[in-house]
Amino acid sequence: MPTYAAPLREFRFLLREVLAIDRYANLPGFADAPAELVEQILEEGARFCQEVLQPLNGIGDRHGCTRHADGSVTTPPGFKEAYKKLVEAGWPAIGCDPAYGGQGLPHVVSLAWNEMVSSANMAFGMYPGLSHGAYEAILHHGDDAQRALYLPKLVSGEWTGTMNLTEPHCGTDLGLLRTKAAPQGDGSYKISGQKIFISAGEHDLAENIIHLVLARIEGAPAGVKGISLFIVPKFLVNGDGSLGARNGVSCGKIEEKMGIHGNATCVLNYDEATGYLIGEENRGLHAMFTMMNVARLGVGLQGLAQAEAAYQNAVAYAKDRLQGRSLTGPKNAQGPADPIIVHPDIRRMLMDAKSFSEGARAFVFWTALYGDLLNKSPDEKVREKAGDYMGLMTPVLKAYLTDKGYQAATNCQQVYGGHGYIEEWGMSQFVRDARIAMIYEGANGIQGLDLVGRKLAANGGRAIFAFFNELDQFIAEHDDDKAMKPFIDGLRAAKDQLQEGTQWLMANGMSNFDNAGAASHDYLHLFGLTAFAYMWALMAKAALSAKANGADGDPFYDAKLKTGRYFVERVLPETAAHLAKLKTGSESVMALPAEAF
Amino acid sequence: MPTYAAPLREFRFLLREVLAIDRYANLPGFADAPAELVEQILEEGARFCQEVLQPLNGIGDRHGCTRHADGSVTTPPGFKEAYKKLVEAGWPAIGCDPAYGGQGLPHVVSLAWNEMVSSANMAFGMYPGLSHGAYEAILHHGDDAQRALYLPKLVSGEWTGTMNLTEPHCGTDLGLLRTKAAPQGDGSYKISGQKIFISAGEHDLAENIIHLVLARIEGAPAGVKGISLFIVPKFLVNGDGSLGARNGVSCGKIEEKMGIHGNATCVLNYDEATGYLIGEENRGLHAMFTMMNVARLGVGLQGLAQAEAAYQNAVAYAKDRLQGRSLTGPKNAQGPADPIIVHPDIRRMLMDAKSFSEGARAFVFWTALYGDLLNKSPDEKVREKAGDYMGLMTPVLKAYLTDKGYQAATNCQQVYGGHGYIEEWGMSQFVRDARIAMIYEGANGIQGLDLVGRKLAANGGRAIFAFFNELDQFIAEHDDDKAMKPFIDGLRAAKDQLQEGTQWLMANGMSNFDNAGAASHDYLHLFGLTAFAYMWALMAKAALSAKANGADGDPFYDAKLKTGRYFVERVLPETAAHLAKLKTGSESVMALPAEAF
Repeated sequence: MPTYAAPLREFRFLLREVLAIDRYANLPGFADAPAELVEQILEEGARFCQEVLQPLNGIGDRHGCTRHADGSVTTPPGFKEAYKKLVEAGWPAIGCDPAYGGQGLPHVVSLAWNEMVSSANMAFGMYPGLSHGAYEAILHHGDDAQRALYLPKLVSGEWTGTMNLTEPHCGTDLGLLRTKAAPQGDGSYKISGQKIFISAGEHDLAENIIHLVLARIEGAPAGVKGISLFIVPKFLVNGDGSLGARNGVSCGKIEEKMGIHGNATCVLNYDEATGYLIGEENRGLHAMFTMMNVARLGVGLQGLAQAEAAYQNAVAYAKDRLQGRSLTGPKNAQGPADPIIVHPDIRRMLMDAKSFSEGARAFVFWTALYGDLLNKSPDEKVREKAGDYMGLMTPVLKAYLTDKGYQAATNCQQVYGGHGYIEEWGMSQFVRDARIAMIYEGANGIQGLDLVGRKLAANGGRAIFAFFNELDQFIAEHDDDKAMKPFIDGLRAAKDQLQEGTQWLMANGMSNFDNAGAASHDYLHLFGLTAFAYMWALMAKAALSAKANGADGDPFYDAKLKTGRYFVERVLPETAAHLAKLKTGSESVMALPAEAF
Repeated sequence: MPTYAAPLREFRFLLREVLAIDRYANLPGFADAPAELVEQILEEGARFCQEVLQPLNGIGDRHGCTRHADGSVTTPPGFKEAYKKLVEAGWPAIGCDPAYGGQGLPHVVSLAWNEMVSSANMAFGMYPGLSHGAYEAILHHGDDAQRALYLPKLVSGEWTGTMNLTEPHCGTDLGLLRTKAAPQGDGSYKISGQKIFISAGEHDLAENIIHLVLARIEGAPAGVKGISLFIVPKFLVNGDGSLGARNGVSCGKIEEKMGIHGNATCVLNYDEATGYLIGEENRGLHAMFTMMNVARLGVGLQGLAQAEAAYQNAVAYAKDRLQGRSLTGPKNAQGPADPIIVHPDIRRMLMDAKSFSEGARAFVFWTALYGDLLNKSPDEKVREKAGDYMGLMTPVLKAYLTDKGYQAATNCQQVYGGHGYIEEWGMSQFVRDARIAMIYEGANGIQGLDLVGRKLAANGGRAIFAFFNELDQFIAEHDDDKAMKPFIDGLRAAKDQLQEGTQWLMANGMSNFDNAGAASHDYLHLFGLTAFAYMWALMAKAALSAKANGADGDPFYDAKLKTGRYFVERVLPETAAHLAKLKTGSESVMALPAEAF
């Protein structure tokens, strides 16, 4: 059975030494969360994830969720009790606004918590995860009455939430959506239609579910400009917060999926369900998209989280499994064979995963900190830059982390040989669960389009130019530092190629949009690799600094430097292939007529 | 529900135009199989796979196999009837020796049949697939009496076969195996021990199962030099071929796996089962390894087969699913949206899969033809070269095709968006089934070691130097051919890099074997890419030749040239990354002490 130990030392290193979050003690939330307190909270969270959530991960996969004839849904054995404990311990509230009962901790801290939850039990973590999405929507777009009515119980976790976008005939292209909203004259609407792929859509964990639903008000314009966002509670909520009548929304089916079996992915049928407009009429997509950055960061995190969990287990197996002898002579001469961790190709798979997970975690935290600055900095310039970076980095982070997280999980499964393919060992689940993260919350191809089509060009390229400036400055500052040389050389090479790719896009993507589309995947991966090169340079700098300041005997820092070195030598060379591919343009991509496929 | 149409035109193109198998009419088997007849056989086979096997693929996945309390195993609904039809139609015999009832068709033809079976229903195909392994073992290593007793019914398919290597504590490292064989004085042995991961180990498809079992005769040397191979029939076979007593082998468990649910992967317990030595005492591994090339080719083929099936369905979905508009203006202005095949990133995924499948099929057929030459050519020089090539190409083909086949299946699943994750749509199964091919029949890491550790150096590098010579000659012959230029340029660049990687290995792999181990994965992929570049050049040449000879109006050849062009521009650039990585040596791969993971 797989195990999981939260990477607390990694969190500490990132928060204290790489990001130095104590610098931001002037900001709301940060002030109340000095590093020591954050670490205590994360230790507590680690225990919860390791002891309560992780043991249910395989159970959730095997049992899945059950829909009964009356449309009610039972979650896997143990989920209900675990959710109760989660709520009692106050975990859903940690990143939420104190005005509604939240703890107001920085986003960067709640992401560390989310990573642990997702590594321990991704399917379970989606219940509070979706609730948080609903919380954000109502917080940012609801009116005061809606906030007062719904937020406290979403924050506490007594109620959960969902996001309802997809319909059978429309996923990416929401302009096609058909769910209708008929005004009732009393300010409410009757919502009718079918939504599919609704995560956490129905379950037995909480007494109410607050569905956020995209629908078209009768007479609204066609396309994306006629879509509004509605609150549709499973049970109507009385003015005093107590539950009223059962609303006209029901679960028609639970999907059988490749993974995340512990989460109920529902077909939801809306049959004249009472709904309340949230935000402006016909501005529903706008409201949805303001939440996207946070949600997409969370999905990127799932890619990392599955890779991390798979990695930890692959390491344990590689140290334990005796098979063959080291190519350079026995390393366990007394035993019948050497542990397979002596074999270079096993190392390759483990080091790929390790250098990925650590780089990914740094990238998530670094980006999330901009999310905090965006929301909390008093300095308009800082907020502007933070908003630019969030916009630019989000698609990269979402797609790169989930593509590579799946690959890392697959490699870690490979370490187990035949046992990796047997469900009992748990490695298959990491791969199957990781797979969805490449698809939902905007399939990865959409992230690429968002990057090259919107984010690069926004404000005349202000975000990407700021990023290049930051990299140039960092490179210049450390160019004479011998210990930093491999990291700076790697970063410079990657950055030069990303710049070349960016220039190519600017020169060729406008004259033929298909050039941009055909380049998007490779450009995004080139960007991801470059961002990782920067993260590894930042981590190397922090590690070197710790060693220079008396921590020379701590093997943590040596491992960090060696893992970074591996990344530069063994992963980063992929940049050249991505650049070469994207520069061939769209011709060979688009050459075949559809009927020739 | 997924569909499948056998790529008959592709087979025809390869067999007639690229490989021109009519050249070999002087060889046994080929003489009786002119191109027209081969095509008729494959058309018949296509119908069988499409109509009988493919409809059972999803059923097999959902139902799996059931072990009953008495150890008997029931295959999924419909498998038994389909197997009966398979036997009645004589399909198991097509590649087998006429002396035992086989049809003696060339290996290259039976591989085309195997590809169709595997695309239609991989889990089903493993039952006759494993039988063929047992057939080969007995054919090449059994004595006359054993051949006469067992082969006719394995050839006809009345009986099936298995290969028993793995034990709980030993997979790759067979030297550790513990299953015992005690001589009975009458020439037979009592076999005792436990084998795991035995595909097709127990089932209800055939009246008898012939297990081939590796075991250690009492008193034999430790390690791989004390392993012998035994025939252990489920039912003992009387001298007249009729069935005798039930033997002491039983299925203790069926594994729950990530995929190939329709095949019973068994724990087999041998409790003083009667077994018969096959081949020489203590030479069991040798006997096993002589069959490996054929088996590994078959597994590589599974990677291709799953990619092909996934690709066909992804194409259908991409033409059908309306979502969004082309970046260069509506292509389906009357409809609510364009089919997603207009989007460059969807094209990228489809073209990656298409250029992979077609390149992979050429590589399989080209290699298999050397298998035929090795077995059948009267010319010793030809046989020597064929043996060299089979040895060299087999690990590349097995690992590269399964790594990339899994990736292609994953990409094709991605084309479906959220629907790809829902089991009902069938795309998940292709991915889950494809996953095993990277693991069994020698995990892909072992293929890399086999390539750099054994095959490169064998006979002073005779095989690899012959391959480089062949490429140099082909390049020189077509260097002035303008139409061939992109293909020749791509091939030359890849070949130069493969040569550089080979030289690096020769210079650095001997002084430190970890350098070879650390390079093996990237070297193998560099090799695979180069082999594909050659295949695409051969296919381009055949397509250009067809166009020059009156087939100019046939869109098949244009598509072939455009797909090849895509491969050269959009896939082949990966060679540089593999070369750069492998040349960094083992240092960063091996730098971490085990406890730092």
